[in-house]
Amino acid sequence: MAAIKVHGSPLSTATQRALATLYEKDLDFEFVTVDLSTGAHKQEPYISKNPFGQVPAVEIGDLKLFESRAITKFIAEEYADKGTQLVHSEKEKKAALYVWLEVEAHQFEPVASKLVWELVFKPLFKIPTDPAAVEENEAKLGKVLDVYENRLSKAKYLAGDSFTLADLHHLPNTTLLLGTSSKVVFESRPHVQAWAADITARPAWSKVLALRG
Amino acid sequence: MAAIKVHGSPLSTATQRALATLYEKDLDFEFVTVDLSTGAHKQEPYISKNPFGQVPAVEIGDLKLFESRAITKFIAEEYADKGTQLVHSEKEKKAALYVWLEVEAHQFEPVASKLVWELVFKPLFKIPTDPAAVEENEAKLGKVLDVYENRLSKAKYLAGDSFTLADLHHLPNTTLLLGTSSKVVFESRPHVQAWAADITARPAWSKVLALRG
Repeated sequence: MAAIKVHGSPLSTATQRALATLYEKDLDFEFVTVDLSTGAHKQEPYISKNPFGQVPAVEIGDLKLFESRAITKFIAEEYADKGTQLVHSEKEKKAALYVWLEVEAHQFEPVASKLVWELVFKPLFKIPTDPAAVEENEAKLGKVLDVYENRLSKAKYLAGDSFTLADLHHLPNTTLLLGTSSKVVFESRPHVQAWAADITARPAWSKVLALRG
Repeated sequence: MAAIKVHGSPLSTATQRALATLYEKDLDFEFVTVDLSTGAHKQEPYISKNPFGQVPAVEIGDLKLFESRAITKFIAEEYADKGTQLVHSEKEKKAALYVWLEVEAHQFEPVASKLVWELVFKPLFKIPTDPAAVEENEAKLGKVLDVYENRLSKAKYLAGDSFTLADLHHLPNTTLLLGTSSKVVFESRPHVQAWAADITARPAWSKVLALRG
């Protein structure tokens, strides 16, 4: 088994997606902190690991991976026999998995990350929050989560009856938003609320949050 | 073999991604035009096929799929023995494929789609183009394509020595941008230029463009 090395920041939502996958799969790995405050992610030696200068980057033996959702999918498939089964191979289940992985990436993430920026990172960097941007994106998130509410009234998890990467990819932004005024967008939808409570309570996710120090 | 039905618009970049995959895989399918001008995609019966009210949606027998990149991946894997091999199963090649699929989705698409909106769709809808937005996004696209230039100086295609979905997903936005002033961002990078010329010349892609009428 090749050694796994994760380069990233425990505060980065993308890094957290990779770490959650590794803990779910019960894999040993070395974590190397990339100091974002000094711009280490924009310089060598880091940019040889990810030419876009973003965290995380993962090395598995000689293999170099970046883009968090590529890392999670590769690990979930290559280590299929370890830990939690996070992907489906049966045709119907795989179709649902692929659809909801893309829904996270193209419907949820663009809106959720704007709210996280306004309500979590701007206050952290002492930049004033834009109330109009919050209002606009909470309205958009509400429309997205209306579709989730319907889906989760029919299936316990997004891709069916078991937890998969389609759920896991939501953890970082969902956890941050549940700590802000936007939590009402989740809490006002009972199936979404139950799902969010369920996935954020997973032991693997607690291990990721503990790394934030 | 279950019948394949594609609901979409030949002018939609997302629909074009699904169609390009079907033509590459040499699969028979029925195309059902969804009239975006009357908002048919926001109403029943269409929103039962895609609850987000966007094109395309694909039916394969009883299976219902939406999100263009989910459709392409599912088809490329399920019909692995037909037409062009668009995905990799060998470990090293799969890692590169997964990375570059996500690069398209998270680095290229957000910038390219903003330029397409400013330079293609705004003029079509008689809305004035915002020159500042064009300048800003051309600069961002240049930085993204600098990374592509380096990658394509070492490999003929993004995921290695053969054309895959990682290349195919770029076709709709790249073709549109090559017809605008932003083409210089591609043409000023020789490996990107050669790659763009190669992938846009594929017979399967010509069939997609012919559907635009």
